[in-house]
Amino acid sequence: MRWNETHLRVRYAETDQMGVVYHGSYLPWLEVGRVELLRSMGYHYKDLEAAGCVLAVAEVNVRYALPALYDDLIGVWARIKESNPRLVTIEYQVKRAETGELLASGYTKHIFLNKATLRPMRVPEAFKDAFIQVISESGL
Amino acid sequence: MRWNETHLRVRYAETDQMGVVYHGSYLPWLEVGRVELLRSMGYHYKDLEAAGCVLAVAEVNVRYALPALYDDLIGVWARIKESNPRLVTIEYQVKRAETGELLASGYTKHIFLNKATLRPMRVPEAFKDAFIQVISESGL
Amino acid sequence: MRWNETHLRVRYAETDQMGVVYHGSYLPWLEVGRVELLRSMGYHYKDLEAAGCVLAVAEVNVRYALPALYDDLIGVWARIKESNPRLVTIEYQVKRAETGELLASGYTKHIFLNKATLRPMRVPEAFKDAFIQVISESGL
Amino acid sequence: MRWNETHLRVRYAETDQMGVVYHGSYLPWLEVGRVELLRSMGYHYKDLEAAGCVLAVAEVNVRYALPALYDDLIGVWARIKESNPRLVTIEYQVKRAETGELLASGYTKHIFLNKATLRPMRVPEAFKDAFIQVISESGL
Repeated sequence: MRWNETHLRVRYAETDQMGVVYHGSYLPWLEVGRVELLRSMGYHYKDLEAAGCVLAVAEVNVRYALPALYDDLIGVWARIKESNPRLVTIEYQVKRAETGELLASGYTKHIFLNKATLRPMRVPEAFKDAFIQVISESGL
Repeated sequence: MRWNETHLRVRYAETDQMGVVYHGSYLPWLEVGRVELLRSMGYHYKDLEAAGCVLAVAEVNVRYALPALYDDLIGVWARIKESNPRLVTIEYQVKRAETGELLASGYTKHIFLNKATLRPMRVPEAFKDAFIQVISESGL
Repeated sequence: MRWNETHLRVRYAETDQMGVVYHGSYLPWLEVGRVELLRSMGYHYKDLEAAGCVLAVAEVNVRYALPALYDDLIGVWARIKESNPRLVTIEYQVKRAETGELLASGYTKHIFLNKATLRPMRVPEAFKDAFIQVISESGL
Repeated sequence: MRWNETHLRVRYAETDQMGVVYHGSYLPWLEVGRVELLRSMGYHYKDLEAAGCVLAVAEVNVRYALPALYDDLIGVWARIKESNPRLVTIEYQVKRAETGELLASGYTKHIFLNKATLRPMRVPEAFKDAFIQVISESGL
């Protein structure tokens, strides 16, 4: 499945006294990357919630290669790696946009939860094509 | 009304590349200060929300005197400055606990909102004594 | 002095369980607004730091009018309100870009500090025209 | 090697509109856990930085089991899993303190970097016993 690139600029709030971006600041960036991946396919994450479903994070993994610096223009690349009606894995590459250097890579695993009960559910029908681009028979 | 002191320790995440605590990191500290002020009086903010009411922030003001540093033990002093059944003003002093130095001072103004509609409401009866310690007749 | 508008989109990380944007999340937005105000005039805040000077926050004030919501496109308007070679006051308006509704307004007061010593200094010569657009004789 | 437990209380700022703690908020908690692990052994992370060394994060992994809720008292358990003079892996368990429920587990991998150059270095002599509790000959 295809990669989508989103740009953002490093905020001062995202740095720490090491003089680089705090490692935890990358998680909101990955969130921006996956929301914009959906938007690029014509879907809005807030509509998923309006349909009574949240995409909860079950696991996050980030490997840091080079530090991001204040005011850097960052490219967050995201794509769906695996999916079935209950689970989605999205992978990411975070790059310094100007140079193309890889700063970090990682993945997030998600499960669809009923927004009211926070219990697992299947992806709502209207979002099936967004997440489940290749549905194997067994996946159903 | 009396001051309550709460202690917290500066996290690395709360610093920025200036080598001190990011100015925005103080707002969660003030939040901790007012929640613990309530707790010290026997009230739990989450019970207010369980009663269908949120204490929304209408205004925040912070003056920064000296920088807080990583790993400092911080004393957040909070007290109710003014209140009526619709509005509460809380004031704060943020100190370096070891030395007593004043790092910042400020206030937050709050309004009670219905949690479902986010429209103004009066403080729930069960919390009246927490917030409205001196109720003038006109305030009612 | 003129207003500059910067756009940003509300991140999920910036919301809280009230279902709206956490009041503290606005401070990084104001930071983005003033950095982009400088950029719009041809100045880069990181160059100020490279010149050995940081623009420390001495005071922040925000009044909240309406809640910002997840995924809203936000317009952060910023302009220099007052300045002299030691101090700058910047004012802000935060709007829902689509509707133009005013969500919050406020100001930040700043002092120029020597980056190494964190002691007050005058604005570096190269940045004088950025901050000190109208310098009164007495201000010098 | 032994586990150390640190307590912290969930802040409102750490929740999101899902009504639970934002997944990214756990990273500062892990940071608190490892800093307090060191402190429990008689070491202060800030002294490591004073010695010209930073403990950079090379990888982070978190698996989320149950949601943490606003105002929960959280127990962050941390222990050194593996270490050599250049690398340290720390593992974590995040629990709801009152019930003992496991909320999340994970690990962080770290490398020692020269604070000035951000290039890899060996752990400073004074911290060897903190991190390298079992040093194999080959590890040297």
